[in-house]
Amino acid sequence: MFDYAESDPTIADEDAKRLIPALRTQLLKAQYQHLLKKDRALLILVGGIDGAGKGDTINLLNEWMDPRHIRTMAFPPPNKHEQAYPPLYRFWLNLPPKGETGIVFGSGYAPLIKEAAKKHPDAALLEKMILTARRYEADLVANGVQVIKLWFHLSRDAQKTRTKALLQNPSTAWKVGPLDGAVNKRFKRLRRAGQHIIDATDSDYAPWTIIPAANENMRLISTGQAVLAALKKRRVSVPPLHDPAAATNPQRAHNPLNDIDYTQSLGKEDYETALLHWQNRLAEAVRHPNFLKHHALMLVFEGQDAAGKGSTIRRITKALDARQYQITPVAAPKQFELDRPYLWRFWKEVPRHGRIAIFDRSWYGRVLVERVEKLIARPTWQRAYAEINAFEQHLSQHGILIVKFWLAITPDEQLRRFEARAELPFKQYKITADDWRNRDKWCEYARATNDMLTHTSTDHAPWHALSSNDKRFARVEVLKRIVQTIESVTK
Amino acid sequence: MFDYAESDPTIADEDAKRLIPALRTQLLKAQYQHLLKKDRALLILVGGIDGAGKGDTINLLNEWMDPRHIRTMAFPPPNKHEQAYPPLYRFWLNLPPKGETGIVFGSGYAPLIKEAAKKHPDAALLEKMILTARRYEADLVANGVQVIKLWFHLSRDAQKTRTKALLQNPSTAWKVGPLDGAVNKRFKRLRRAGQHIIDATDSDYAPWTIIPAANENMRLISTGQAVLAALKKRRVSVPPLHDPAAATNPQRAHNPLNDIDYTQSLGKEDYETALLHWQNRLAEAVRHPNFLKHHALMLVFEGQDAAGKGSTIRRITKALDARQYQITPVAAPKQFELDRPYLWRFWKEVPRHGRIAIFDRSWYGRVLVERVEKLIARPTWQRAYAEINAFEQHLSQHGILIVKFWLAITPDEQLRRFEARAELPFKQYKITADDWRNRDKWCEYARATNDMLTHTSTDHAPWHALSSNDKRFARVEVLKRIVQTIESVTK
Repeated sequence: MFDYAESDPTIADEDAKRLIPALRTQLLKAQYQHLLKKDRALLILVGGIDGAGKGDTINLLNEWMDPRHIRTMAFPPPNKHEQAYPPLYRFWLNLPPKGETGIVFGSGYAPLIKEAAKKHPDAALLEKMILTARRYEADLVANGVQVIKLWFHLSRDAQKTRTKALLQNPSTAWKVGPLDGAVNKRFKRLRRAGQHIIDATDSDYAPWTIIPAANENMRLISTGQAVLAALKKRRVSVPPLHDPAAATNPQRAHNPLNDIDYTQSLGKEDYETALLHWQNRLAEAVRHPNFLKHHALMLVFEGQDAAGKGSTIRRITKALDARQYQITPVAAPKQFELDRPYLWRFWKEVPRHGRIAIFDRSWYGRVLVERVEKLIARPTWQRAYAEINAFEQHLSQHGILIVKFWLAITPDEQLRRFEARAELPFKQYKITADDWRNRDKWCEYARATNDMLTHTSTDHAPWHALSSNDKRFARVEVLKRIVQTIESVTK
Repeated sequence: MFDYAESDPTIADEDAKRLIPALRTQLLKAQYQHLLKKDRALLILVGGIDGAGKGDTINLLNEWMDPRHIRTMAFPPPNKHEQAYPPLYRFWLNLPPKGETGIVFGSGYAPLIKEAAKKHPDAALLEKMILTARRYEADLVANGVQVIKLWFHLSRDAQKTRTKALLQNPSTAWKVGPLDGAVNKRFKRLRRAGQHIIDATDSDYAPWTIIPAANENMRLISTGQAVLAALKKRRVSVPPLHDPAAATNPQRAHNPLNDIDYTQSLGKEDYETALLHWQNRLAEAVRHPNFLKHHALMLVFEGQDAAGKGSTIRRITKALDARQYQITPVAAPKQFELDRPYLWRFWKEVPRHGRIAIFDRSWYGRVLVERVEKLIARPTWQRAYAEINAFEQHLSQHGILIVKFWLAITPDEQLRRFEARAELPFKQYKITADDWRNRDKWCEYARATNDMLTHTSTDHAPWHALSSNDKRFARVEVLKRIVQTIESVTK
């Protein structure tokens, strides 16, 4: 795979002089067409052997193209502040919107290469990392981010020569990183590691291109051509991981909504005692040093209209310090949010360690309202289950506790509440034509809810589907389950 | 001023039971009307004596109102990551959008109180802090953020009793901060400091309300009433600091644009030598440890259409590491940006220490396109000069170097470039009907430009108005001035 690159091929200066102007014009033109069409973002991951000229080449891309629409990112080891967020947090927040280009210096593959280059790599861990990378790239592509990956490679001798030459010239010496020397000593092992990782993560939807890096002309022109080909690509097909056929035919033994016992209730006095009890335990649990240092809490509230999400949330926040939590009410996405992958706007609200994020409606809108109201195509919501599970799994691995509530009411109870709301002057705003329309689609929503509960209730982020016909019962039950979840890591 | 609060007035429980439900209903109703109208944001600064129950009261506001539209903030001393940004950075980024409410726990007045409570306060420093606070609040109000300030106060004895009682109960002991005990010892001095600061920063547009805090009922009800009054306020008048009359009649001795010598030019060979020279010096300057640790660079590019902003920027970035800079192209604001004060979207792009932010057009659109195209009222752009100067001064005090370029061309030269663009296929996108329309308003834009250069060229953020009729001359001159600015802090 590296044979050609290690032959250190060159392009003569006179040829380059002829090739480069045409390439630049084409690149700029393709970039503007991409900007005008705005049908996808382009993400370029730049990896490879250290000392192969990655930095120079990225700078040149910025010079050849319109740099106002390119965001160059680098993710050095996270500082203390960044460590309080999940690893992918920085990456997600910096994703380019549709029409724009993002270049990731170092490609994000460094941890994989590092593991693979060990004398005795942990095969199971490596396999997991590879699967995660593939899965993550597939999700990006399916969400409108085209991904290409460049691997800068050259022969061991050329790497050594290049590093030496840079060091000799004071105006280029800064380009040599502390690792560039070490690379040469471990060249064989890094070579093998690169080969393994490229093999394992190459795909139709996020392909690797090996850039022969010894000769500057060759390196620049090959890179420019790879980017040009990506920009010119008509459309990037949905990766096989997301084949809708694979997601259909859910094995639904039963409908989770049918299990709910709507007769559960709580007397007023019992309610008040229990409420106070669980609120106190909650207040204590979220101040536990272990929670503050190693965990965070994400609460998701979904449910039919008028199920009591808002009033339940208020019973939780009563026990909390207002500086510790943030409530995010979720409505239809805005244009700048639609320009990014679906989960982007929720990533922005991911809590750092010690904090609590409460979602009044959530990313599950993807498989509820967006599905039922046909705002998105069938394959889109079908693959969303797996995307959401991967998202929550990543958060969970970082210590974030995710507790999801489906507050369920019966159609009769909903009607009663709608009518009561219509009577209270300051609650009328809460009942709109939309609410009545949604009510007409009760069965469609129930089907979507059952699918959601079946496909996305996981060990690390379970759904709690509860009757909210009696609000007192629901409030106490919600508090109790939150407390139990936190105490499972603090006791 | 504190006499009434220090009499520790109370509201009996039975009265409170009657008053509170009505107050809650009114508060919620007012909040929803505020949300529907979306004509301004509400910012509540909560300050006062420690141990006076601020935290409890903020929690209760979140319970009484709809907490989904309230953002509670606290700004403890900045961590290392935050210290790389200007002090107001966190504050700006968290400003509530129109229709929403923000509560600042601790009010941001802590540094002023601390200084004023010293045995020998620095009178000049204090005066400066007070002026800054007044100026900043005035800017917020003028930009659609209503500001109210609450001061929680109680007698020395009551503070002592309250702290003791909280400590005795294990479920409330956490509410007592480490400073609450110290407060009691220094009560007299803090009292005097509070009085001084409140006196000096009370205003019609951002008034202080003293909340008697010894009795819980009294504290809660007074707070609720103060917030209700703010929400119900029809409109907050433009503060006198921003009186348009004061800003008119600029003493314009001459028009800066008239000073530009459009005959300046540079031969091709001289250009290439000079370009390389300044690019090398720039590359060196931005890697100087002093720049990396204590400074940042903000470059502003403004100029007529086709003046060569983009190509000049590319000559700068060629000398830079793509990981160190970010280019922000500025276009018309989006709705979510219009929901915040004008400068919000630029605050988001403020660079941390060691970084470079390049603006292709900028916040000066406020006094250029928005003024000429009559997108905003006259008083709005008139007060923008002072707002912008205050913004840049704050950045400058944090070590950010601000260099602003006006690239000037003559009408003839512009016409020549427009026609040349129309001929090149991949440059046609660059010339639109807007460009021709702007050209018709040449004189209006020149007048606005002259005003801008006169009012906003300051020692800490000077304008460089340069001829760009000869692009080579402009590029070298721009590079030189940037290098000189950085070297003034690194040599």
